[in-house]
Amino acid sequence: MATLDNKSATAEISELISSTSISKVEDVLKVRSVVLTGNGSYDLIKVIEWPLMAKCAEHEVRVAVEFCGVNFADVYHMKGNVLQWPVPYVLGLESAGKVTQVGSAVRNLHVGDRVVCYCPNEAGMFRESVVVPSTHCFVIPGDICTKVACTLIANYLSAYFAFFSFGNLRSGQTVLIHSAAGGVGWAATQLAASVVGNVRVLGTASENKHHDIVTNGVTEAFTYENYSTHILDAEVDIVIDNIGGDNVKKSVDLLKPFGRVILTGVNCVVQEDESKVAKAFESIASSVVPMQELVMGNKSVCGLHLGTLLRDNPKTFHTAVEQIFSLCQQGLIEPRIHAVFPLSKASEAIKLLAERKNIGKVLLKVE
Amino acid sequence: MATLDNKSATAEISELISSTSISKVEDVLKVRSVVLTGNGSYDLIKVIEWPLMAKCAEHEVRVAVEFCGVNFADVYHMKGNVLQWPVPYVLGLESAGKVTQVGSAVRNLHVGDRVVCYCPNEAGMFRESVVVPSTHCFVIPGDICTKVACTLIANYLSAYFAFFSFGNLRSGQTVLIHSAAGGVGWAATQLAASVVGNVRVLGTASENKHHDIVTNGVTEAFTYENYSTHILDAEVDIVIDNIGGDNVKKSVDLLKPFGRVILTGVNCVVQEDESKVAKAFESIASSVVPMQELVMGNKSVCGLHLGTLLRDNPKTFHTAVEQIFSLCQQGLIEPRIHAVFPLSKASEAIKLLAERKNIGKVLLKVE
Repeated sequence: MATLDNKSATAEISELISSTSISKVEDVLKVRSVVLTGNGSYDLIKVIEWPLMAKCAEHEVRVAVEFCGVNFADVYHMKGNVLQWPVPYVLGLESAGKVTQVGSAVRNLHVGDRVVCYCPNEAGMFRESVVVPSTHCFVIPGDICTKVACTLIANYLSAYFAFFSFGNLRSGQTVLIHSAAGGVGWAATQLAASVVGNVRVLGTASENKHHDIVTNGVTEAFTYENYSTHILDAEVDIVIDNIGGDNVKKSVDLLKPFGRVILTGVNCVVQEDESKVAKAFESIASSVVPMQELVMGNKSVCGLHLGTLLRDNPKTFHTAVEQIFSLCQQGLIEPRIHAVFPLSKASEAIKLLAERKNIGKVLLKVE
Repeated sequence: MATLDNKSATAEISELISSTSISKVEDVLKVRSVVLTGNGSYDLIKVIEWPLMAKCAEHEVRVAVEFCGVNFADVYHMKGNVLQWPVPYVLGLESAGKVTQVGSAVRNLHVGDRVVCYCPNEAGMFRESVVVPSTHCFVIPGDICTKVACTLIANYLSAYFAFFSFGNLRSGQTVLIHSAAGGVGWAATQLAASVVGNVRVLGTASENKHHDIVTNGVTEAFTYENYSTHILDAEVDIVIDNIGGDNVKKSVDLLKPFGRVILTGVNCVVQEDESKVAKAFESIASSVVPMQELVMGNKSVCGLHLGTLLRDNPKTFHTAVEQIFSLCQQGLIEPRIHAVFPLSKASEAIKLLAERKNIGKVLLKVE
């Protein structure tokens, strides 16, 4: 794992940019970007010029970015919990802006369209300008502003698929939402409380966030320390579990018959101690799924990953995005933006999420 | 584990009956019953007189049995895969007949009612007369005969909860049903093909049963040996898996995004070699659930157990039984009875299931 110090990182990056395999200088732009140059320290996130192809391929579009959405996945990447790509690479899974160039085979997007770009399998979205496969772009309806649209994909889609594709959430049921003040938790609370309605929403968060999550629709707020002593076994229909690890067993205990735990993350791997960086995938693989309890209790465990869904089932994904845009237009969901940082302060934004200080979405803005 | 030989078993049972803790002789009847006197051999299944309380308790009813339904659970009990109760005990989870006595607190059942009795948590149903909690009895509608009613509970309810409570089965989907010629498989095929309709039904069975399962609604028949080479990964919405063990991983591989494996049994524990009797619960506990595949593939694993459901959620269970009776009345499901054995040949009936020679339900008849 590369853990370059500041100076050598800068030198190495300059070299890497100059030695790019793209031979013709006119084919390459240099675009201000948030580059991860090593794992485990916020100092290794650099905001620098980084190469980008000047001409997009036939199925791609170029987008001038206005806002970027910060996700917990960015924390995993920074810490080294997920080692998907060799450093250095450009961070960020989502951004939003205006289409400025369209590949020759793209029919559904046009220059001037406002779009959200979501690239969970490629990253590279935290920069002034991005080139994205057209299938990963979603045209923003006229009455939703670009900033709000940039909060609607990763978080609301996770909540949407959890409750509607897996959970079959219905009025009269009880749900438990962990990290109810986080991006996914905030979205999930609204889907349960406003879209379905008549749902008992149990939510966990630090105590200082309880007032806010209750305002958002949580009916009973708990801390991570006390929730399992207050909620009874066989009380919950759906648990959205972004903690993973040992918590999966706890979540299963709380389920009613035909209840479901939907695993959306493994935040338990984010440790304070950098010397013991846990790997997210290894932690998922070794999560304790109490199979006998599933069988004897008529329970289920579901895994959710937006990246593979968008890659393998783009139509399902696009239909869900349209639903979310429509719910936003109807005023049934109202994203909360915790803070907007300039692109140059991306590392501060990621730190804020890692320290779980946010309530709702954190954005970056291209100055 | 008791493995008495024939003679000593008989002697011990006589002693046990005579030394019953019920002191007043007039309180005890002796009723012809199928008694398991030890594990691992069909010889240890004895059809003998066995004590039964003469007067049922306030929430119980007595039923004069006409038919009993044989289930794979009886095989587990005989083999010793499930050691729920110390031997000797009366085998059997379901029977059907006429109510002959009603406890003082029972309001919903009357002498003369025809009922199916289902006691997955107590067994004791293979006998001429049974005493059953009233919550475990289901009144048979007038136009369904007692024999047919005795095929409708364990098998059809398993299929019903798998597809409708867990699976959310819809027209246009693809399901894989293991043991499509067995009791649950036969029922599940009908629910998919006749009740939902426009469902692609993949089914496994021995080759000599393929004609029959196709007649029942299976659209593509496979053997256990070749199914995984013919069915593609990401092709199936719901797998009903009664094999368990290593097969769970195979089943998960075949799922589409948002697909579900529903674990209804662990038939893999039924070994030919009696010296290596695997325990069903241990095998469930150690089943390989590929958690990372669940997450990366947007998949889920569900456990189904009718016993705990009936105990903890009788209302849910009773509602489902009414649905099944109604589907039968409408002619949308048509149980197939493979064979009817006299009570005295219970061990032959259980052996037939263990050797997987049946197509559809096997019943016992009180002579």
